[in-house]
Amino acid sequence: MDTRAALAVEAGKPLEITTVQLEGPKEGEVLIEVKATGICHTDEFTLSGADPEGLFPAILGHEGAGVVVDTGPGVTTLKKGDHVIPLYTPECRQCEYCVSGKTNLCQAIRTTQGQGLMPDGTSRFSLNGERVFHYMGTSTFANFTVVPEIALAKIREDAPFEKVCYIGCGVTTGIGAVINTAKVEPGANCAVFGLGGIGLNVIQGLRMVGADRIVGVDLNPEREAIGRHFGMTHFVNPNEVGRDKVVEAVIDLTKGGADYSFECIGNVEVMRQALECCHKGWGESVIIGVAGAGQEIATRPFQLVTGRVWRGTAFGGAKGRTDVPRIVDWYMEGKINIDDLITHVLPFEQINEGFDLMHAGESIRTVVTY
Amino acid sequence: MDTRAALAVEAGKPLEITTVQLEGPKEGEVLIEVKATGICHTDEFTLSGADPEGLFPAILGHEGAGVVVDTGPGVTTLKKGDHVIPLYTPECRQCEYCVSGKTNLCQAIRTTQGQGLMPDGTSRFSLNGERVFHYMGTSTFANFTVVPEIALAKIREDAPFEKVCYIGCGVTTGIGAVINTAKVEPGANCAVFGLGGIGLNVIQGLRMVGADRIVGVDLNPEREAIGRHFGMTHFVNPNEVGRDKVVEAVIDLTKGGADYSFECIGNVEVMRQALECCHKGWGESVIIGVAGAGQEIATRPFQLVTGRVWRGTAFGGAKGRTDVPRIVDWYMEGKINIDDLITHVLPFEQINEGFDLMHAGESIRTVVTY
Repeated sequence: MDTRAALAVEAGKPLEITTVQLEGPKEGEVLIEVKATGICHTDEFTLSGADPEGLFPAILGHEGAGVVVDTGPGVTTLKKGDHVIPLYTPECRQCEYCVSGKTNLCQAIRTTQGQGLMPDGTSRFSLNGERVFHYMGTSTFANFTVVPEIALAKIREDAPFEKVCYIGCGVTTGIGAVINTAKVEPGANCAVFGLGGIGLNVIQGLRMVGADRIVGVDLNPEREAIGRHFGMTHFVNPNEVGRDKVVEAVIDLTKGGADYSFECIGNVEVMRQALECCHKGWGESVIIGVAGAGQEIATRPFQLVTGRVWRGTAFGGAKGRTDVPRIVDWYMEGKINIDDLITHVLPFEQINEGFDLMHAGESIRTVVTY
Repeated sequence: MDTRAALAVEAGKPLEITTVQLEGPKEGEVLIEVKATGICHTDEFTLSGADPEGLFPAILGHEGAGVVVDTGPGVTTLKKGDHVIPLYTPECRQCEYCVSGKTNLCQAIRTTQGQGLMPDGTSRFSLNGERVFHYMGTSTFANFTVVPEIALAKIREDAPFEKVCYIGCGVTTGIGAVINTAKVEPGANCAVFGLGGIGLNVIQGLRMVGADRIVGVDLNPEREAIGRHFGMTHFVNPNEVGRDKVVEAVIDLTKGGADYSFECIGNVEVMRQALECCHKGWGESVIIGVAGAGQEIATRPFQLVTGRVWRGTAFGGAKGRTDVPRIVDWYMEGKINIDDLITHVLPFEQINEGFDLMHAGESIRTVVTY
């Protein structure tokens, strides 16, 4: 079949709105009509060429929501008409990782997903007979896409696509880092570095679990208002306190150091600050941001020997098929706020404008609808 | 009173066996007759001058066992004749750290202890009227020493001093890192870097909790036999597999990566190896060794984002007054082996020979008796 798509032709170029060809679902695969998709920094990371593993031409996009149109042989948990969110971290519930109970990093289709291919080693997308790569196993920048059954979370049918698509990445990553990775307890004092589409979700996750002090750190003074709206109690602007005084400022505001801190930028220097502002004896720092290729984090081991813990998280430690439907429920019940984070909604044809808004720092999240 | 002591006169010089003057215990303090003391790398670290916080002249030693001789005003939990182990990490059970339930790093007397002084800001030791510093709050290289009540673990009276003194540091640090810090579960596959007085105790801790594979890493081939004696199941010599192949070798032997790894040397490059040999998704690495001043650890943040955790431990995360008596019981019940780790016992006057044995790599632990 043909489908409209925003094709990433090569690194550094805008997406091209075009028509590509899509094969139907094979064994264990599902054909989805994508109804809405968010634009995330990770798409930009790959499109810019900064991602050393980026493949072109490809259909990017990993923050979508849609409806099942067709199922391939052997698919048992989904049927036509089901509402779904594609998962770039699948949940097969069979592999060593899934059954460990210790991680969400399902390995079932990891190799082919990283190669921009479906589990059988081929692509469903093509353009005039030439192969087009999948991206993160989701490729939500096409109106129709094929996704493995194990990489689809079934969600309630009354949830609006143009809101809950954001749960496919940013919302779950931020809230999940709080509840799955850090396991923050009520009364904790916390610090959040970077108040973008991830950091603000960390903040609302912290508010949800009953954190006391929630210190936000960002260079952009305009992020203070929205931070406070989502639950931030104190704001630190490194340009105001001095970039070498950020750790001191956070320790001060958290009464001796953060019980938990979160790096939501991808800056290795900030990752160090996030660790070193943690409370001696027990403070834990969680890296969420993705650093550039080859970059390294560093600290004195004394920071760890005196009780700080350094960890990281991917997709907020969430097991997508299990946890994503629950987060959709939370949104529908008003426990979390997504509406105020989606600052822009554009028709699909204007998807490149969404990237422009991100570059300009004007959007928290732009969603495009088909 | 006068007491025999091994005085650290200045950095880089051997200890001087001499007689120093000792004041009696003040409020909340206890006078101890030290019966035996181990010689630990940390004593050597300070004596050598490598410790930037080292003070001289001082009475070193922090791995002792002895008997209460006198108690100062207000002491309620100890009386004359009690057998005790001095604790360089005290347990006041009152400070924010003690009551947190999250750390053993009691802060009650931290500042003065770091200054080589008793909690009232003075020293009990002197030589011809000149102040001599305490060390780690314990100073077990003197036949008699004064220690705060909160820094003394009361132990059973049938435990032999020349064995259980080792529980004052090395035994508790190694076993505690396994049970308190890493909380290793039965069936785990683990790696231990450095098979000295700490690493071998990590190994016996791992055996005690039912670990499956216990991979030891050491440059000294002579450590293989004793490692296996204590429970090590596999041995890696970096000189044999190649120093840049150690991570690969450990991942191979632990079937995909260590569930838990332990750095027991103090080498920042080895700390990186210990982290990076951990299992994707859940492997946790614990830093026990003390690195040189100003040295830093580094890794790619991807290591953490894909689920590895980096932490550290001091005194094995043990709360001394609570946990040390329990470990003494374990020794007396035969659950742990201390005898085979104490390779040399010397009379106090030959304490400098104990340092020589350590330098030569001939001893695991040397104990001196008074």
